[in-house]
Amino acid sequence: MADQFSQQIIFTNSVGDAVEAWVAEARPSKLFVIADSNTARLCLPALAGESASVAAATHIVVPAGENHKNLATLASIWDSLCSNGATRNSAVINLGGGVVTDMGGFAAATFKRGIRFINIPTTLLAAVDAAVGGKTGIDFNGFKNEIGAFCSADAVVISTRFFPTLPRQELLSGYAEMLKHSLLKGGDAYNRLTAKAPEQFSQEELLELLRESVMVKKAVVEEDPTEKGLRKSLNLGHTAGHAFESWALECGRPVAHGYAVAWGLVVDLVLSHLKLGFPSAMLRNVAGLVEELYGRLPLECKHYPALLEYMRHDKKNAGDGTIAFTLLKAPGEVDVNCTATPEEITAALDIFRDLLHI
Amino acid sequence: MADQFSQQIIFTNSVGDAVEAWVAEARPSKLFVIADSNTARLCLPALAGESASVAAATHIVVPAGENHKNLATLASIWDSLCSNGATRNSAVINLGGGVVTDMGGFAAATFKRGIRFINIPTTLLAAVDAAVGGKTGIDFNGFKNEIGAFCSADAVVISTRFFPTLPRQELLSGYAEMLKHSLLKGGDAYNRLTAKAPEQFSQEELLELLRESVMVKKAVVEEDPTEKGLRKSLNLGHTAGHAFESWALECGRPVAHGYAVAWGLVVDLVLSHLKLGFPSAMLRNVAGLVEELYGRLPLECKHYPALLEYMRHDKKNAGDGTIAFTLLKAPGEVDVNCTATPEEITAALDIFRDLLHI
Repeated sequence: MADQFSQQIIFTNSVGDAVEAWVAEARPSKLFVIADSNTARLCLPALAGESASVAAATHIVVPAGENHKNLATLASIWDSLCSNGATRNSAVINLGGGVVTDMGGFAAATFKRGIRFINIPTTLLAAVDAAVGGKTGIDFNGFKNEIGAFCSADAVVISTRFFPTLPRQELLSGYAEMLKHSLLKGGDAYNRLTAKAPEQFSQEELLELLRESVMVKKAVVEEDPTEKGLRKSLNLGHTAGHAFESWALECGRPVAHGYAVAWGLVVDLVLSHLKLGFPSAMLRNVAGLVEELYGRLPLECKHYPALLEYMRHDKKNAGDGTIAFTLLKAPGEVDVNCTATPEEITAALDIFRDLLHI
Repeated sequence: MADQFSQQIIFTNSVGDAVEAWVAEARPSKLFVIADSNTARLCLPALAGESASVAAATHIVVPAGENHKNLATLASIWDSLCSNGATRNSAVINLGGGVVTDMGGFAAATFKRGIRFINIPTTLLAAVDAAVGGKTGIDFNGFKNEIGAFCSADAVVISTRFFPTLPRQELLSGYAEMLKHSLLKGGDAYNRLTAKAPEQFSQEELLELLRESVMVKKAVVEEDPTEKGLRKSLNLGHTAGHAFESWALECGRPVAHGYAVAWGLVVDLVLSHLKLGFPSAMLRNVAGLVEELYGRLPLECKHYPALLEYMRHDKKNAGDGTIAFTLLKAPGEVDVNCTATPEEITAALDIFRDLLHI
């Protein structure tokens, strides 16, 4: 298993050099770059300037946005690989945010039963989350990542160099996952991460915080690549978070993934407090930070049934009617096998709204 | 690797009991049976009569035939799983020939990033080939198995009980893969298998020959699950065979997979003779048997370019312009890393037509 799931993670701002080194070793018969319409414009030209392999590769550009992370776009990628002569010995570079790394990874994982790929995340969120750990997939029938596979990138090249082009909202979206990792790690991690407002860290400070954060995820994934147990810890904040995200999308007012996770983190810490005695001072601290950075989700009681319905559809559930959660006894002390009843979740949503002054 | 790819193969005609035993151990939250319109009519009722779990399962019936092994049918399976509340802890039983086990296996392998499945092959071909070994997938853009994944069934239940409903052509189709396995195994295997005409074996004799044949494949797959080396031996007959199959389909005169493999076997043995000195007496023996059982493919010189084009698209090629073949020095002595030039293949196709009196 270690063989298949341990992946090389390279932290560097010399991204072109990292790509050339990988290509020299992997020697793909043909190289493809998958980018979206944003990264094709904002990131690909610079990278092509630094890497002859990237410049010479076949570029597959997909429309940007989560609403294009679907079967139609996936089929168009397969089609481009097919019609441009990709073989089993070809390779793919995914250059983009989580949509590109998830979907491009799944396309590569399933083309001719799997060709090699590397991820170059261009957003903080993708760097800290989607690009690492081998989860690939697309949304289907309105459910996030409903179709996919566990398949690790050959390598992930993590840099902060593409972040200056990101809107603040994108930066905050990634920061929410870093908050999650710091709570999973415990110790001083949360304090280090929240010592300054996220946009006040220098690029070097951020790369260092990123390394610490990614290593939390990497360690968990290597222990449990296919989410039989420990990996579920990474779902902290995600049961409620995914429900918020799907619900907001359905309402026609989509929210960024990281925002949904930030709010979901507060819900999960409320449940952690109610069920496992997570310290209330820490809960209030996190809730205050989330309100300050992410604002308020316009949630009312009448929306609860829809949210519960989304939670029931969560992949993490056992199928026995309960809803699965990952909760914390305290920072660094995780329980991955918690469940909550609809009544408990309703109570937690009420407290969540109180804490965030919704 | 062994963990992920070794699979339980159960040889029994008490298929219902085998399913019940598996369900008792696996305890899926929900059970689905994927069948095609033929097996839903001819095999599912009897099996449901023997297995309460099968009777109570959600049945997903797809249209029969290779031309439905495509993205649209796959999406309809995902949709059925989704809308009938499948969870990560659900499981799928694939009841059918290779189309059902390949496509149902891929649907399960990718639904919520992978749920468990077992295969119950209902054709000799699926029993001896598709159902065992973890290759799943669909055809795409006219290319066979262009999209897919390596993912082993939890268990494969192999019986001869569904074969009496098979047309003779279906039986012969599976027999071609058994011929291939016997040539790969060497020793007396080919003689045992060809001691009688295939339809003259009793059900018990056939189950025993089937066990011997499947074990050849199982041993190879466990050694090399993702086809880095040894597994390529199973491609004997398949480079030319797949080209025959794709070409015949394109011409609007589709041929059964096993027929294409039988003819492809002769082409590959001709190349084996030309390049590795495979004994000509044995080549003539196999060619005579193939002509007798499978008849003649209406192939003319003018068709060669189309066949070569299909061979160039084969997944097995390295992408350097050569065409990859698995060849034999003699029965039981395999070389998986052969290549042939278009000129050599053209010569082999000429000899193939001579041998089969085309």
